[in-house]
Amino acid sequence: MDFNADLQARVCAVEEVIKKYLPKEEGFQKSLLEAMNYSFLAGGKRLRPLLMRECYRMFGGRGEVIEPFMAAQEMIHTYSLVHDDLPAMDNDLYRRGRKTTHAVYGEAMAILAGDGLLNLAFETACRAFSLGGQASERETKRERGAERIGGAMTILAKKAGISGMIGGQAVDVEAEKRKLRLDGEKLLFIHEHKTAALIQSAMMIGAYLAGADKESVAKMEKAGYAIGIAFQIQDDILDITSTLEELGKPVGSDEKNDKLTYVSVYGLERSKQDVEKLSREALEILRDVPERNEFLEELVVSLINRKK
Amino acid sequence: MDFNADLQARVCAVEEVIKKYLPKEEGFQKSLLEAMNYSFLAGGKRLRPLLMRECYRMFGGRGEVIEPFMAAQEMIHTYSLVHDDLPAMDNDLYRRGRKTTHAVYGEAMAILAGDGLLNLAFETACRAFSLGGQASERETKRERGAERIGGAMTILAKKAGISGMIGGQAVDVEAEKRKLRLDGEKLLFIHEHKTAALIQSAMMIGAYLAGADKESVAKMEKAGYAIGIAFQIQDDILDITSTLEELGKPVGSDEKNDKLTYVSVYGLERSKQDVEKLSREALEILRDVPERNEFLEELVVSLINRKK
Repeated sequence: MDFNADLQARVCAVEEVIKKYLPKEEGFQKSLLEAMNYSFLAGGKRLRPLLMRECYRMFGGRGEVIEPFMAAQEMIHTYSLVHDDLPAMDNDLYRRGRKTTHAVYGEAMAILAGDGLLNLAFETACRAFSLGGQASERETKRERGAERIGGAMTILAKKAGISGMIGGQAVDVEAEKRKLRLDGEKLLFIHEHKTAALIQSAMMIGAYLAGADKESVAKMEKAGYAIGIAFQIQDDILDITSTLEELGKPVGSDEKNDKLTYVSVYGLERSKQDVEKLSREALEILRDVPERNEFLEELVVSLINRKK
Repeated sequence: MDFNADLQARVCAVEEVIKKYLPKEEGFQKSLLEAMNYSFLAGGKRLRPLLMRECYRMFGGRGEVIEPFMAAQEMIHTYSLVHDDLPAMDNDLYRRGRKTTHAVYGEAMAILAGDGLLNLAFETACRAFSLGGQASERETKRERGAERIGGAMTILAKKAGISGMIGGQAVDVEAEKRKLRLDGEKLLFIHEHKTAALIQSAMMIGAYLAGADKESVAKMEKAGYAIGIAFQIQDDILDITSTLEELGKPVGSDEKNDKLTYVSVYGLERSKQDVEKLSREALEILRDVPERNEFLEELVVSLINRKK
């Protein structure tokens, strides 16, 4: 099977898994649940749960315990987009060629839908406790499973929180509102926290739940950093080089908002070189594991060379 | 010691505990952390962590595992107020006589501060895993501890989420925006989810982490329901009978927003009677435990008879 067909099949399989954890649209709070599902089902590459599953497999994980975490990770990603699009934030009416959540359901419901998705992420991850981890047949192992799930939950929360994604988001928002000139250090902080943190989280949780040791989890954190930063720089590059048809959102929306990007700080050429360098670093780490995952390696390459 | 002095001392002790879990205001994301701490330290009765701790004690809990959960529960309560006050929601500039978070830090930062507090709640609860539960001396018990902490985390997430507080919040917001006439059923749904859910959560987690059995945890859920609904009806009553000086927010702010309340549906007399009835129900449950907690009983009475 060629890579693109393989990728499509695996993304489909990931979709199947994560959709199972969406709420039924019923009860007095039906509109809220609709708004949440609308946001979650707006498409997207499902990159984070895919990376999580592939890292889990790379370290020998074969159980179901990873599944609620895959859904949880994607819920966190989704909520961040819903809140990011709000009028008080980026004020975007379209994303991936589709109306954003607040454009359809109103601002108040979009705030609540984001809150609902963030909360549901942890509620969903908690469902791993009843799956009992990798070894559910023996009591002691089952209990060790609970501790491991707790550890995975800690990674999930930290990388999404004030020392992770929200931290980066806050610095980004503040810089924009105050029209601050960003230096390279602050810009890298934003990219590391706003974008790389959830990639790191996905890869680390995959390894951790498969039973990988501390050192291997730390390696995934490094690889996730390189992939995340490369991915974000590529995003910045695409923002000025793409067209509406290709990307599904207005061209140069970052520029429209006077947003400083990696490209505007370092220039297009240096940005492209750094993307290459970071991808090499990530691949070196991924090739230095007991059992290589060739699909994962190809995925990383394709992310870096993507045109949309 | 009389009840009020005792209450004050215990609230102070609770304050001490929960403040330990606040982030240091440092790093590039300093403004975010300031906004979060500003919100968290805006006062308030600390009712939920207090109820949690007292229920924990009532069921014989003596460990530290309850502490991160006390902080987490209050963070969830705080974030809900921050988002509730936003311009797109209730649009309140003052709460407890103090400027609301968005009035001080701007709308974007208030959204992120709320997100940050919700995420930090789960990150904080995760810290209980490294405390290891009640019995940290023996390996098997330590591991059983992890499973128990997972169970407490599940209660925390469920009661705060789409089947709990956020669910109630969404129904409330939708009813207001569309100026829907609320019937008694829908109004009770809102009160149960928006207000009672976090009281239930606090009491259930307290019992659960102390090692209480399922039946006892279910009793705490019932008591929490009665206390929560009574508390909310009392809030509705106070909203029309209080003055700005006493309450720290404009009188009749619910009426200003054309908000339907228990009082506007059932009238003042019936509302007062229901508060009494619910408080009796709660007290009956709290008196039917192996080891009574008289302070907790008095606290419930004082909540119902409060004048602000």
